[in-house]
Amino acid sequence: MAVGSELLTPFRVDTNSLFITERLNTVGFDVRLKTVVGDNVDELSALLRQSLTWADLIVLTGGLGPTADDITRDAVASVLGLPFDEDEATVARIRERFTRRGMVMQEINRRQALVPRGAALLENPNGTAPGLWMEHGKTAIVLLPGPPREMKPMFEAVLRDRLAHLGGGFGLFRRVLKITGRPESEVDARAQPIYGPWAHQEVPISTTILAVLGQIELHLTATAASAEGASRVLGPAVRALQRALGDDVYSVDGSALEEVVGAALRERGLKVAVAESCTGGLLTSRLTDVPGSSGYVDRSEVCYSNQAKIDSLGVPASLIDQHGAVSEPVARAMAEGIRKKAGTAVGIGVTGIAGPGGGTPDKPVGTVAIAVLSGTDARVRTFQFVGAREMVKFQSAQAALNMLRLMLKPSAADGAS
Amino acid sequence: MAVGSELLTPFRVDTNSLFITERLNTVGFDVRLKTVVGDNVDELSALLRQSLTWADLIVLTGGLGPTADDITRDAVASVLGLPFDEDEATVARIRERFTRRGMVMQEINRRQALVPRGAALLENPNGTAPGLWMEHGKTAIVLLPGPPREMKPMFEAVLRDRLAHLGGGFGLFRRVLKITGRPESEVDARAQPIYGPWAHQEVPISTTILAVLGQIELHLTATAASAEGASRVLGPAVRALQRALGDDVYSVDGSALEEVVGAALRERGLKVAVAESCTGGLLTSRLTDVPGSSGYVDRSEVCYSNQAKIDSLGVPASLIDQHGAVSEPVARAMAEGIRKKAGTAVGIGVTGIAGPGGGTPDKPVGTVAIAVLSGTDARVRTFQFVGAREMVKFQSAQAALNMLRLMLKPSAADGAS
Repeated sequence: MAVGSELLTPFRVDTNSLFITERLNTVGFDVRLKTVVGDNVDELSALLRQSLTWADLIVLTGGLGPTADDITRDAVASVLGLPFDEDEATVARIRERFTRRGMVMQEINRRQALVPRGAALLENPNGTAPGLWMEHGKTAIVLLPGPPREMKPMFEAVLRDRLAHLGGGFGLFRRVLKITGRPESEVDARAQPIYGPWAHQEVPISTTILAVLGQIELHLTATAASAEGASRVLGPAVRALQRALGDDVYSVDGSALEEVVGAALRERGLKVAVAESCTGGLLTSRLTDVPGSSGYVDRSEVCYSNQAKIDSLGVPASLIDQHGAVSEPVARAMAEGIRKKAGTAVGIGVTGIAGPGGGTPDKPVGTVAIAVLSGTDARVRTFQFVGAREMVKFQSAQAALNMLRLMLKPSAADGAS
Repeated sequence: MAVGSELLTPFRVDTNSLFITERLNTVGFDVRLKTVVGDNVDELSALLRQSLTWADLIVLTGGLGPTADDITRDAVASVLGLPFDEDEATVARIRERFTRRGMVMQEINRRQALVPRGAALLENPNGTAPGLWMEHGKTAIVLLPGPPREMKPMFEAVLRDRLAHLGGGFGLFRRVLKITGRPESEVDARAQPIYGPWAHQEVPISTTILAVLGQIELHLTATAASAEGASRVLGPAVRALQRALGDDVYSVDGSALEEVVGAALRERGLKVAVAESCTGGLLTSRLTDVPGSSGYVDRSEVCYSNQAKIDSLGVPASLIDQHGAVSEPVARAMAEGIRKKAGTAVGIGVTGIAGPGGGTPDKPVGTVAIAVLSGTDARVRTFQFVGAREMVKFQSAQAALNMLRLMLKPSAADGAS
């Protein structure tokens, strides 16, 4: 339960619950209900009463501040019928925190030291509000502050010290395969016959397919008593899907595509130079999001105009006249031009129509030509992407990174997969 | 209420409720509770029973598909004690939809044509599942499909046809001021004395401050009978805050910083060329996110290495030796170099240390020098940003865009503000 009226506006979304769910799953708790409620004692109390009838664990975030609209403590104490005691050690700690910053603690801050009788205090290294742990019948209740940097370390400690053994020793373990270059329906058509039966095996694996822009994720989840137990089931499962999906799987350890490409460039000691038109710098920005990328990204140019392509990259004007600026020969000439200028082994050229304007019947918005050169190897392709300007930019950058990844893969040279 | 077990995993967050909240607010509905529940009839039924005791309106999204785990219809009908009738027109429409795609409707799809007795069907132009509208005592209940592209148009129609007059004719209206270049505490210190009293005036305005990376938003909200009535209150309020915050306010109409900068460049007929080091292409990518930016973005170069700065931008090697690559003279030489090469009126140079490596005691990670030249005008500044690599990149791009914005403002030349 997330408590706070600001979470009921159109501007804020509760993300604490994603972190809490992920961590709870690892120790075997299943999340059955999430709620967001405003700073209203009656409504929160009604929800608590209802949840106490069935839940093993209730986690509340937010509403532990010092002001009158911080109502979580009050609602929990009133539902459980517990009186408050002031915790002197907490008052002293809060006072000391203010003093250290050259400020005086206000009387109102004493509210944060009120403890429902019988509750255990949870230390907050990053703020004034301590958390609280309570038990009521079969239900454990945890109160955490709302700011993620205060909530997260506190929740990790509760998980380790109090929840890990309550979960019955079985946790949910996950593997994620990231895939690009193939539509969701095709990925599922190849993968489903493989993962389908896993739902009914002795240690079942549940599989979820998540399609996001230019990328598909397969999430495999198994319940096991330990990480090792999970690996015995999930390891072979990941490998079976990798075999079926081949080179389209670019990561099984959570790495982003630009990290995979960066690692391959670093490993092979190659430097890359980039000439971008329609992606407008996005491809290079993604390459340079990776720490240490200055070691393999030499330079990049964004050449929007034909003149810039001619002057700066040495693209022959006749090539543009003959094929148009958005064409495979021009993409290739851009890649060659920037590579020659930078003296790098790898060159990339991207030219296309990101929209919303600029499309023609021949070359509609979303038409993008990409060339990737590495040593004597060259690959040039034309794509037709769908979506708004930023989506075309992202998909183009994704496709260029993927072409480079496939080119650098050892297996690609053998014609495998 | 969002229905769907996938929304109880760590990977998905319910964003439909943000859209629904925003739209409901405009017709005077206040959202008091949001819930996410799995594909479980009993749990959804318990929540519905509880909400029927107090809510004027219950909106459910998701769980209207044809399979057994789509349980929203069943839960609502069972709580209200209503039998199902099959709607023949809906069956025909679904069948026709399949036929058009060369497919045969499965028997299971008839589930989507089941209507609790007395409910009104809501047309779904973008999918098979119709929505449903029901009334029970004082509570209206709306069932909508989960996919946003199906949910949104359906909800807009319900809002217009059925909810607008229920809300009592009063709606919440909003204005957003976007501010950059000043910390949240300072913005609030200047703005609070102005907006504070508005909470108690005849038509009160409530104010929320939202700080995100490199940017602060002030949201003003007033309740009024019409958009015109709201403008009479919010218009002067926006202008009062603009006067107090001066040039730090870059937009009052929702525009992004790159759009404001783009409009100013276009209006003044100026073209820009960019030389980026630590931002790695992000600055140019943001500039080119704006449709039509090819009209004023001439070219950009990402020069990570010193050699590239010397060769390609003509930065004197002696300047780098003397001041270091991250320095105001080098940023300025980069801006001059790219501007000369491109022949544009405006040139930008950005050089810094994005981290995590590369920092020194003198120039720690987050040190960024930015130069912006326009005609004979030149501004050069050094910033010290905090945060991880991508945060430093974003804040650097934000600062460069803002320097250019201030330089292009007519008031800047008069020394105003």
